[in-house]
Amino acid sequence: MQNFDFYNPTRIVFGAGTIASLARLVPQTARVLVLFGGASAEKTGTLAEVRQALGERFVQEFGGIEPNPSYETLMRAVEQVRREKLDFLLAVGGGSVIDGAKFVAAAADHEGDPWNIMETGGASVTGALPFGTVLTLPATGSEMNNGSVVTLKATHTKLPFRSVHVFPQFSVLDPTKTYTLPEKQVANGLVDAFVHITEQYLTYPVQALAQDRFAEGLLQTLVEIAPRAIAAPEDYATRSNLMWTASLALNGLIGAGVPQDWATHMIGHELTALYDIDHARTLAIVLPAVLDIQRDKKRDKLLQYGERVWGITAGSEEQRIDAAIAATRHFFEGLGIPTRLSAYGLGMAAVNDVVGQLGAHGMTRLGEHGDVDLALSRAILETAL
Amino acid sequence: MQNFDFYNPTRIVFGAGTIASLARLVPQTARVLVLFGGASAEKTGTLAEVRQALGERFVQEFGGIEPNPSYETLMRAVEQVRREKLDFLLAVGGGSVIDGAKFVAAAADHEGDPWNIMETGGASVTGALPFGTVLTLPATGSEMNNGSVVTLKATHTKLPFRSVHVFPQFSVLDPTKTYTLPEKQVANGLVDAFVHITEQYLTYPVQALAQDRFAEGLLQTLVEIAPRAIAAPEDYATRSNLMWTASLALNGLIGAGVPQDWATHMIGHELTALYDIDHARTLAIVLPAVLDIQRDKKRDKLLQYGERVWGITAGSEEQRIDAAIAATRHFFEGLGIPTRLSAYGLGMAAVNDVVGQLGAHGMTRLGEHGDVDLALSRAILETAL
Repeated sequence: MQNFDFYNPTRIVFGAGTIASLARLVPQTARVLVLFGGASAEKTGTLAEVRQALGERFVQEFGGIEPNPSYETLMRAVEQVRREKLDFLLAVGGGSVIDGAKFVAAAADHEGDPWNIMETGGASVTGALPFGTVLTLPATGSEMNNGSVVTLKATHTKLPFRSVHVFPQFSVLDPTKTYTLPEKQVANGLVDAFVHITEQYLTYPVQALAQDRFAEGLLQTLVEIAPRAIAAPEDYATRSNLMWTASLALNGLIGAGVPQDWATHMIGHELTALYDIDHARTLAIVLPAVLDIQRDKKRDKLLQYGERVWGITAGSEEQRIDAAIAATRHFFEGLGIPTRLSAYGLGMAAVNDVVGQLGAHGMTRLGEHGDVDLALSRAILETAL
Repeated sequence: MQNFDFYNPTRIVFGAGTIASLARLVPQTARVLVLFGGASAEKTGTLAEVRQALGERFVQEFGGIEPNPSYETLMRAVEQVRREKLDFLLAVGGGSVIDGAKFVAAAADHEGDPWNIMETGGASVTGALPFGTVLTLPATGSEMNNGSVVTLKATHTKLPFRSVHVFPQFSVLDPTKTYTLPEKQVANGLVDAFVHITEQYLTYPVQALAQDRFAEGLLQTLVEIAPRAIAAPEDYATRSNLMWTASLALNGLIGAGVPQDWATHMIGHELTALYDIDHARTLAIVLPAVLDIQRDKKRDKLLQYGERVWGITAGSEEQRIDAAIAATRHFFEGLGIPTRLSAYGLGMAAVNDVVGQLGAHGMTRLGEHGDVDLALSRAILETAL
């Protein structure tokens, strides 16, 4: 096991009916900005529940945070926070709204150009407004971590930042709020959580036994619940497991003390920024190709993954690895999510463009060994054609 | 899954050489009381490392906190804290020292009789001194939770308390600090962690899939590492896994959203208070009997436990449950830990005495259904003869 520093102070309030607990979770004297995305938060009644729980507090709202939240949009929220002297943020939505709230929280008091937060990966953040979240879309895990991804639309630049100051104070997870999600978003969420786990698990063994078991347990859970998560939107048990599993997938726990490989995410970000493919869908394209190209360096973990998650024990090592990758691909495709660039009409020109963007963004040493340079990224993308 | 509220702000700093990080973890201006147990903290050099890391800070020490820390001893530390105006506690040791530090932290500022903290189970705690820990004995999980158990020697009363104010700010977990532990303490630690897990797992199913997988993964890890944990004291990987697994066993995570059964602990506490049997050893006596007596109510989980942790798939349900309980007993006995009262020379008289103490302490509705009354506790104890 590698040395690690684990810290996660986010309170999770989980279960049906828990939005009412905002009444005690948000400070009585807070001047609140409620951030949300599109019209669904209003239509589903979630915003109404939030307003009721906040009661007599001073509350303003900021809607229209888009998927892959943009710097341009978020800076308008920052201006509102500053102008109205708001001091508490409440994100109501999925990962994009929560990521956006983290940026707004960090940027509100930031000295100098807030884009600097992104350029330094969060290192320039010295404080942030307190904030909480009401999660409506289980997928990114942003509700229980201190990471955020923001896109500068002007240059198609999608960058992550991280800071100890942007852990949510609390996140309210009410599985019934996911009942009205479009099937596509549920499928995306399953894939997003799945890939978060593999990126902290499918590297090389360091005898971190509990972390491996936890990662495998979460993967098994996703595989087990996926059919009903799609087919039975109002199955409370299934949606509960989806929601909590997606949070556990990226709250720092399974990544503590183990090597990590975020190559899939970094390459995927470029696909989203260039072609506006849903984040999770980019991961489904890239992950199988990463596993295939890196199969020698990931050999031991791929074999373990095949056996413990998919029950693959027969055949040679190469056959078992092939089968594990095929099972992964089949899982994604079974959710209606393609695993090839060609499904989006993308070919060699896209490979060139993505490699160009990776170079422009300094993404030249990806992977758990830092060996995924532009040539290897190109090979991965070609494998994903 | 049941509704839950999960919150755990303790920072874990894990790995070889991490005691040096106290230099940044403890506030520079703190007036520190270092609490420890017996002579081993000095002999092993751990205290010297701690002193060096604390550098020029104002530091006093309080040694002699015994296993099953006593109110009488801890109140002397409380007096020292008050007299010397100390404002930060650092527990160096295992669960007893850490539990003791939690009590001292809560009692230092407590209005009125501090024993009230124990009588109210922590409800009377409105604040506590900040504190951190340096863990030397993986077992209780106290380093990453907000629970504590204190014994009033005068009346053989061992009671737990819990408060949001007594989470350690940080815990330093250096697996090399466990190399010098006596074999008996390592065996006790394995059993203590194992039983903590089963008490949050072996109840009844609520479709909490990830929690089940996590619990099973931790149990599998303990079973896997146990032989080398005993036989190879300086195997870093093994001791790392033991240390982290014991923390994860009782940090609130696997218990979030599931029913829990602490009957084994509560009955075990009386055995320790009356006969001074090591805490973990009381659990090894009581757990198999609880599982046997409650087998109908725990049926589904016992079958799942047998299959997933021990690979038991053959035979009738009763046979599989018998085999799962036998495997549990065998695991404890294999560590040199008896699973019968008779191994300690205790018979029916002890059963009567323990039942009497349970009654005196109001322990008449134990278990996940609250149905373990004194008659059922008697049946459990008789099964453990």
